Amino acid sequence: MKKDRPLILISNDDGVAAKGLNELIRFLRPLGDLVVMAPDAPRSGFACSITCHTPVSYELVHEEEGLTIYKCSGTPTDCTKLAFYTVLDRNPDVVIGGINHGDNSSVNVHYSGTMGVVIEGCLRGFPSIGFSLCDHDLDADFAPLERYVQRITMKVLEEGLPALTCLNVNFPKASSFKGVKICQQAKGLWVKEWIRRKDQEGLVFDIAGEFMDTDADCELNDHWALRNGYVAITPTTVDATDYEMVKRMKDWF
Amino acid sequence: MKKDRPLILISNDDGVAAKGLNELIRFLRPLGDLVVMAPDAPRSGFACSITCHTPVSYELVHEEEGLTIYKCSGTPTDCTKLAFYTVLDRNPDVVIGGINHGDNSSVNVHYSGTMGVVIEGCLRGFPSIGFSLCDHDLDADFAPLERYVQRITMKVLEEGLPALTCLNVNFPKASSFKGVKICQQAKGLWVKEWIRRKDQEGLVFDIAGEFMDTDADCELNDHWALRNGYVAITPTTVDATDYEMVKRMKDWF
Repeated sequence: MKKDRPLILISNDDGVAAKGLNELIRFLRPLGDLVVMAPDAPRSGFACSITCHTPVSYELVHEEEGLTIYKCSGTPTDCTKLAFYTVLDRNPDVVIGGINHGDNSSVNVHYSGTMGVVIEGCLRGFPSIGFSLCDHDLDADFAPLERYVQRITMKVLEEGLPALTCLNVNFPKASSFKGVKICQQAKGLWVKEWIRRKDQEGLVFDIAGEFMDTDADCELNDHWALRNGYVAITPTTVDATDYEMVKRMKDWF
Repeated sequence: MKKDRPLILISNDDGVAAKGLNELIRFLRPLGDLVVMAPDAPRSGFACSITCHTPVSYELVHEEEGLTIYKCSGTPTDCTKLAFYTVLDRNPDVVIGGINHGDNSSVNVHYSGTMGVVIEGCLRGFPSIGFSLCDHDLDADFAPLERYVQRITMKVLEEGLPALTCLNVNFPKASSFKGVKICQQAKGLWVKEWIRRKDQEGLVFDIAGEFMDTDADCELNDHWALRNGYVAITPTTVDATDYEMVKRMKDWF
């Protein structure tokens, strides 16, 4: 690798074959050298999980000037951790998760394997960005995202991000966007989360659900931005401390 | 269930057979009616992951007055979500994860299945607490925790917790504690995370690691508290928005 080009580490949770990953690679090729370490199969909803009880492995899938692609048997977070330990010969300038097939805004940040990649990059001290498109279709149209993904990535390469802060970027399903909004995580909760059915083993449950916004009209929210045709960038912290509550609890015990 | 007693929903990530879970049940029996929905096998490091591609199921393990125990094929978060959908006949007064065999302080909040339970309870709007002991031993001694677990749970039952805030409570491995500290999440990162070895499939990697504190001497931190013999309570938010960065990014695009 030429050392004067930015180094971009990429992973995702939809797996190495996903269209979203391969579109991301295409968008970012002009911006730097890419190293991809992606799960060998879809691992949606894996959050920041790590593989504790079995070993993981990886193998080279593709190599050309400025682009190396590996697949890994582990979770999205494993992929990210393992890339640092095995295949990177220098620190990345940015760590990117995505492009996810599906919405990772609002509380989904907690369940998202894509954001698992991003949180891991951030915890290690590197500027990190997650890109997600609100469209689960395997053949979703990512073309409208190209110039936004490039612009946001270039901005982060130029400006960096503060320690402990990463970006959760979500795109509405649309052929064009009204612009970018810097957002807060919308408040709300998943309801009707399970579909109950009988199979040969007995009663089983498939995850499903509808999201119920509890502050749907707040224009500061990522959900509002997405519903209204904007690209939603939610600055996200990996410091989960509730500092206000630290103060309030001082006299609890 | 008698409706005048508090209802406590419990899950964990070490599985239904873990000593930590069964000690927690013993400690909390005097405080309320308990419903346990725990993984049917150990699922450490599962974070907030959800099972997207296969169905999950559960079954009754044990039932007596004031205590019902189920085991579930899913992740800790699945267990929590499924309990709400299937076995609870009213809202819990508190949701509790643990007692974990191992430390969930500092950045481990992101990887912890125990905290997956707690974050899920909190996202659904219920006061939620995670208890963890810094001892991975399957036969760890939980007895010194009893009165702290009871006191913290009673306090939360009395006072509640603010929306979007849960508690991450960690105990040092010790026969007694110096008291309770209300803490911040210690900053730092995992290093030397993989052990490389050859098996019949070729080169594989087992997760391991050492934690490197980057602000080790800060007396406000959960790691400091644990190292110095205190019970560390870290108030934890499920709103991951970095509000300071929202302001700073207003002129980025």
